Amino acid sequence: MKEKITIIKVGGKIVEEHESLNTLLDRFAQIQGRKVLIHGGGRSATRMAERLGIESRMVDGRRITDEATLQVVTMVYGGLVNKNIVAQLQARGVNALGLTGADCNLIKACKRPVKEVDYGFVGDVERTDGDMLSKLIEQGIVPIVAPLTHDGNGNLLNTNADTMAAETAKALAVHYDVTLIYCFEHPGVMRDPEDAASLIPVITHDSYRTLLADGIVSGGMIPKIDNAFNAIDNGVKEVIITRADAIDGIQGTRIISAKWKVES
Amino acid sequence: MKEKITIIKVGGKIVEEHESLNTLLDRFAQIQGRKVLIHGGGRSATRMAERLGIESRMVDGRRITDEATLQVVTMVYGGLVNKNIVAQLQARGVNALGLTGADCNLIKACKRPVKEVDYGFVGDVERTDGDMLSKLIEQGIVPIVAPLTHDGNGNLLNTNADTMAAETAKALAVHYDVTLIYCFEHPGVMRDPEDAASLIPVITHDSYRTLLADGIVSGGMIPKIDNAFNAIDNGVKEVIITRADAIDGIQGTRIISAKWKVES
Repeated sequence: MKEKITIIKVGGKIVEEHESLNTLLDRFAQIQGRKVLIHGGGRSATRMAERLGIESRMVDGRRITDEATLQVVTMVYGGLVNKNIVAQLQARGVNALGLTGADCNLIKACKRPVKEVDYGFVGDVERTDGDMLSKLIEQGIVPIVAPLTHDGNGNLLNTNADTMAAETAKALAVHYDVTLIYCFEHPGVMRDPEDAASLIPVITHDSYRTLLADGIVSGGMIPKIDNAFNAIDNGVKEVIITRADAIDGIQGTRIISAKWKVES
Repeated sequence: MKEKITIIKVGGKIVEEHESLNTLLDRFAQIQGRKVLIHGGGRSATRMAERLGIESRMVDGRRITDEATLQVVTMVYGGLVNKNIVAQLQARGVNALGLTGADCNLIKACKRPVKEVDYGFVGDVERTDGDMLSKLIEQGIVPIVAPLTHDGNGNLLNTNADTMAAETAKALAVHYDVTLIYCFEHPGVMRDPEDAASLIPVITHDSYRTLLADGIVSGGMIPKIDNAFNAIDNGVKEVIITRADAIDGIQGTRIISAKWKVES
């Protein structure tokens, strides 16, 4: 029987506000057993770019990453956000270790090919080393992963944190029973973001198609749910989308694999 | 018999120029066996602070680190400089892992007490976890250490890289035969910086006192040599001060312990 592990993905808005970050780190410290935290930091990067006179250009919520912007996200994600989380978790008795995909060659990516849009130094994940990561975890280390990968040729690449969470979860699923929890500012996927009672408790492949067709799921929620399905369809045991102060995973929207339905 | 390990400390001037960094990383990649790299980054931090309109104030070569400056050094040392070195070493087949003192609680420090000068968020090293570090090293990992520590209460602290190198070398001396090499832009400690033939091949406690009295060693070289003696007097096997392109340790200035003299 495999041991359990909890992977928490937390977005920019939460890690960048003092109070919500503190609450998140308190909750994260309370999670028993093996765990991993994967964080964003986009708002801090945008703010830092502004201060440096670098224009932030986004296409479909993805950051166009030229060389100057790559420097900013390397500083902000790999340095400012990551190392502050590490120090604050250490203060809570969590043996945190800050990582990018370049560290220990954990997550290798390729620079996204130029099609309609040239995203610049943006990485599409190719390979995640679950063996190396699990070796660290088995020493009691808690990985804190910043959304940066590398191409193996010396270049860092800006990489979507939701995708990194899904890929990390898949790679660790070989070693563990993985619960992946995507945290953001809402209680889960909502029919009406203004109405807490409209939370959708379960999404299957079938119901997802209907939600998309009806326009209930749109915009930035689409890649998030796509990532969630990518994880649950590839060995991850549980995927939940929920609010950052509910990371025990009891509440929120549960993403259910088609495979699970077939097998049951 | 203990295994050998080589610890290289490299300063800001070398890591911040593309060509000298490339040479350093080529040489570092060629070092056989266990190794650690500890880097500075002061010039990049000063430049980034300037771009952000933050004044850099130095006292005796040490940076006064207010909250805004701590953000800058966290970004620059822990993110920009560290993660780029990691990615570039990975491209050279070195299994690099970027670390600060907060990661895995490796190096705990206390905020320097305010005496004549308030250095702000500057750390004096209290404890270095050589056991944890050697566990990582025994997995084939090559630690790349940025000059940041933490206080255990959630605060990062700006810390002198020469001191971190000495403390790391001392902590690893329990497990390994440690060679510590301080690299900078000169071939070693010189009687006359303009004359390569004036290299001082060996410094003992006795000769150091004379060099100080004669004013041959002064300024920033004093804390560097003090750190070197701190290492060699506390279990480190070899300490050499040399040029960054000579890190095989054959050339340069060798620091010899008083204890070594007594025992021989």
